[in-house]
Order: sequence, then C-alpha cells, then structure tokens
Amino acid sequence: MISLRMATAHDADAIWAVLEPVIRAGETYALDRAMPREAALAYWMGADKQTLVAVDAAETVLGTYYCRANQAGGGAHVANCGYMVAADAGGRGVARAMAEDSFTRARAQGFTAMQFNFVVASNIPAVALWQKLGFAIVGRLPMAFDHPTIGLVDALVMHRAL
Amino acid sequence: MISLRMATAHDADAIWAVLEPVIRAGETYALDRAMPREAALAYWMGADKQTLVAVDAAETVLGTYYCRANQAGGGAHVANCGYMVAADAGGRGVARAMAEDSFTRARAQGFTAMQFNFVVASNIPAVALWQKLGFAIVGRLPMAFDHPTIGLVDALVMHRAL
Repeated sequence: MISLRMATAHDADAIWAVLEPVIRAGETYALDRAMPREAALAYWMGADKQTLVAVDAAETVLGTYYCRANQAGGGAHVANCGYMVAADAGGRGVARAMAEDSFTRARAQGFTAMQFNFVVASNIPAVALWQKLGFAIVGRLPMAFDHPTIGLVDALVMHRAL
Repeated sequence: MISLRMATAHDADAIWAVLEPVIRAGETYALDRAMPREAALAYWMGADKQTLVAVDAAETVLGTYYCRANQAGGGAHVANCGYMVAADAGGRGVARAMAEDSFTRARAQGFTAMQFNFVVASNIPAVALWQKLGFAIVGRLPMAFDHPTIGLVDALVMHRAL
C-alpha cells in the first residue's frame, strides 16, 4: 500500500536518500550533479513548493514529489510538479501513485492544467508514463539536455488539463 | 545610438521605471501584477542572472534585459533572457539591439542555444521579432496565460541556436 502525505522537516534524510542518486546520475533532471545536500533540499522543499512523500505501511519513504505554480501572474493557473522514486522502489507504481495524487491536489487548489517543462526525451519510461496519464507533448527542445553517457538529447514539454 | 552595458545598483530606479508599467499591465510577462518594486528588482537583477541596460548617448535607460542559464546541470548550455523596453522608447530598435547584444554575450560565454520559455502568443510584435531574429516556435502551451483583457491565450516556447 502506497500513501501520500505532506513532507516535514523530519523527512529530510529520507528525501535526500531519494534525491541523491538521481541527482548524482544526472540522467533525468537538469540539476548540477555535484549539488550538495542542503542546496538540493532547499530546492526540492522550497517555500514556493508543496512537497510530499510516498510511504508504505511501515512509513518507509518510497518517493517524493513537489508541486508549485509553474508561472506567476497570468500563468499561475498551471501547476508544475517533479517526482523522484527511491532507487529500490521501482516497478511498484510509486510514480503513478504520486502523479495521480498530484493531479487531485492540484485540481483541488484550483489549478486547471499541469505542465512539465523539461522531460528528458531519453527517459523513455517517464515519457511513456506521462502519456499514459494523459499528458501530450506540446514542445520539443532540441538538444537541450547533455546526458552523461548519450550526449545531447532533446527535452520535451508535456501538458495535460486537470 | 543605443549602447549596452552591465547594470549596476545605481540603475535600480531607471530599471524599475522600465519594469513597473510592463508588470502592472500584466499583458506580456507571467509576473504578479502587484509585484512590489523590491521583489521585481530582486527577480530582474537576481544573483543567477546578468542584467544589462540599453542606454542612449545621454545615458538615459531605454530598456533592460537579463540572461541566465535556463537550466542547471545537463541543461546549462542553453541561455534564457528576458527583455523590456521603456514605455517611451518604442519603435527605436531597442528590443532588437538588446537581443543581438544578448546573442553575442551568450555565445561568448559558451552557450550554444537560447530559449524563451513563455512568449505570450497575443504579443504579436514580440513573436514576429523573435522569428525575424532566427527563433523557431518549438512549443505551444495551450491557454497557459490569462491575459487581463483577452482572457486565456497560448504561450510559446521559442528557440534558436547561437
């Protein structure tokens, strides 16, 4: 069973354990691979964001996501979220559970759409999951991401109504 | 004659005079229309950005722009800039002069492309200028901007190599 709850400062260690391997790998997020723990947590749990954790029945953190308004002013009705799954929690539907939770929460907060600004095109499982969950590719950023092993690949802008 | 130079703290009043009417109008930038002066200057002249001013021979500020890396990590080779022209300096080529200066500077700093993340589609002069200057529309964000008089309009993602 996967449940979602708001993250607290007590989750910092568990969240960092999820973030660190993803950031260090540098294959899916456009973040500095050397980003230190405090900077990463300040980014992921920043004041402009709501940050949640996916936990199992034993309260083990399986993943984490954040949501925020993607733009201010006239763009504030579109949500933006980022998701990371714990290295040892793949294949259990954690990403999907987090995504569906994020749609519900974003809708409840009045957002009418969700946009992902930078889905690395070589991250095939992510692209496939987002399409399965109703996202359309609305933009393709040519060679926008320098993948550590593949080299320059496109990044996708993905969008769905809520 | 329009020349470009790095902005300093002494330019804050002149920069705010350019920013304020654009932000208050809320027609072209996804920024809170009520954004206070200090927040706007912190945004436009933030530590993550280089901020320049376009001045005439008398050192009157005609416009201002910023540039930064659009993403960190594997996305850090793509620049992102924002431009605003003073309310009384339209039609003099200020936007074009700033754009061309930004291409040169970004190229010199090693950026290989430039991306605009959110060009409001109803801002026809801007879209036309960017296309004339070599930008392609690589994304269309459906109804991503709530224009104060027109209502929901698309926003465009625009890109050019440097």
